[in-house]
Parts: sequence; structure tokens; C-alpha cells
Amino acid sequence: MAAAGKSVRNLLFLEDLHAGQRFTSAPHTIDTAQIKAFAAQFDPQPFHLDEEEAKSSLFGELVASGWHTAAVTMKLLVETGLPLKGGIIGSGGELIWSRPTRPGDTIIVVSEIEEVIPSRSRPDRGMVRVRNETRNQNGEVVQSFTAKLVVPRREPAPAEAAAD
Amino acid sequence: MAAAGKSVRNLLFLEDLHAGQRFTSAPHTIDTAQIKAFAAQFDPQPFHLDEEEAKSSLFGELVASGWHTAAVTMKLLVETGLPLKGGIIGSGGELIWSRPTRPGDTIIVVSEIEEVIPSRSRPDRGMVRVRNETRNQNGEVVQSFTAKLVVPRREPAPAEAAAD
Repeated sequence: MAAAGKSVRNLLFLEDLHAGQRFTSAPHTIDTAQIKAFAAQFDPQPFHLDEEEAKSSLFGELVASGWHTAAVTMKLLVETGLPLKGGIIGSGGELIWSRPTRPGDTIIVVSEIEEVIPSRSRPDRGMVRVRNETRNQNGEVVQSFTAKLVVPRREPAPAEAAAD
Repeated sequence: MAAAGKSVRNLLFLEDLHAGQRFTSAPHTIDTAQIKAFAAQFDPQPFHLDEEEAKSSLFGELVASGWHTAAVTMKLLVETGLPLKGGIIGSGGELIWSRPTRPGDTIIVVSEIEEVIPSRSRPDRGMVRVRNETRNQNGEVVQSFTAKLVVPRREPAPAEAAAD
């Protein structure tokens, strides 16, 4: 019932994850209308709203808000990217925009598990450190977001692992 | 003309900024409708979309997407928070969500200049490192975002300062 209307994905527990594992999302194309709509609501600066005004900005052209790239990245992670049981839950991380997203760019997110960290105090869960690279159609990285995410265990950790 | 319909703010150049300087934005109240609308578009997870389903999540209640808090924070910075000449332009930073934003929360952003960094190669600009704390109506920090932003100089830097 919860999966009605959604493709059913095999969601992974902490035990299923290991460093080096990679996941790739479906693509999403960001067009001018999306860029301007997001900017009007959340980042109303001329270089995100108006082609003419953008020409005289530092960017020299209309570009997406970095927060828009981040928001679409999250959508891709949730829908098709990172198949984590319990969802994608974290408390932030290091966010880097290495180049702008431009109108018409098609982005995907490539996530790599960097570390699996069992919880010392909670036998029912752990964390993974994941580097999420958002890439455009030329394979260029437009954003990287490295974050620790909470992941439930399929089975409670043995007592010794849960000590502390 | 560019300021038509907007309150005119005194926008600051690099020379006007110093470590310890603080700026506070106007408030913004995030309601349930905003939370669900953002989540439907960018973070479609049950704990951001449905009060009932949220009860059995890690949060125990409906909460805003962290990316929604980040996006509203940007809106506040742009409109009333950080009065930087040239706009708010950076390449990312450290993003921390220390507690969730809940329906009805009223948030403000308090920005503190931590460091002013003249450019070694570009006499026409520099950077500032700014810590932006997003706080709810109880004064609790819901997000901090520490970033380096590009700020133009009013006058080009003297040759010795621009040397590299």
C-alpha cells in the first residue's frame, strides 16, 4: 500500500552497505522556468531571475541557485538515488558548488558510501558517510555534498558492538 | 529603477565589513502547507508530507525538509539579512541542521562576519567568511551555514595588497 504508484525499490539496511558501494540516480533536466520559479521563491537575485540582468553579473549568464541544485539533488536521492531503509536522514554536511547549473542542464547524482559507522549507543542503527556528486550531462561535477546519514540495522547489533 | 518595489538597503562593499559584524533578517513563518509543498517537489519523504506517517518516523511528527529550511534561510539572507553589494555569491560551505523546523515555526537568520579575506589575485574583490545561524522563535538554532562569499571592493586594492 505504501508503495502504490511508486516503483518498488530494494531498500538497504546498514548490514547491506560497505565502503566503495555506488548508486546512481535517474536524470533530471533543469529548465529556465524551473530556475526562475525556484529563485523567485527562495533566491531572488538577478542572475537567477533575468537573462539580461545576468549578463552583467559575476556569472555572465542566467544560472540556477545553488540551493535549487541542492534541492533537485535531494529529490533525485530520495526517488531513485540512495536506496536507504528508513529514508534519507542526516544532520547536514559539507556542501560544495564547483560550477553553476545552467538552463537545460541534465543532472544525475552519483553517491558513494565512504564509511559505515555502527552506533556505539544504539544497537538498532548506525550511520554511513556518503559523498553525493551531482553531475551535468558533460560529466562535470556541479555539486558535492558529503554527509553522514542514519541507517537502521536489519538485526540489532551484538552486545559487544553496541557497548559504550 | 532596480529598486522599484523593494525597500532600499545600504549595500556594503568589502571595505565596510569587519570580523564580529552582525546582521539579522526579518522573520518568516513556515506553515504546514509550505512544508508539504516543498517536500512534494524536492524531498518527498513521509515525515515531510503526512502527519500520520510522520508519527512512526524518527522525528515522531511532521517536520520541514532541511533543504526547505536552507532555502528559506537563503530568501531571508537575500531580502533582508546580509546586505552585500553584488549579491550573495559563494561556492558552498558547512551546513548543519541541529534541530528540525516544525509547522508554525518563525525563523530569522543571524549572520556574523568571521573573517574578511582580501583577494591575492583580484584587486576588485575579496571574500568574507560568514556564519549564518537560522533560529526559531525560541532562539534555538535550527541550522548553521558557514560559507565564504565574494564581495566587491569599493576601490581597487593597493598594488601591494593585490600582489600574490
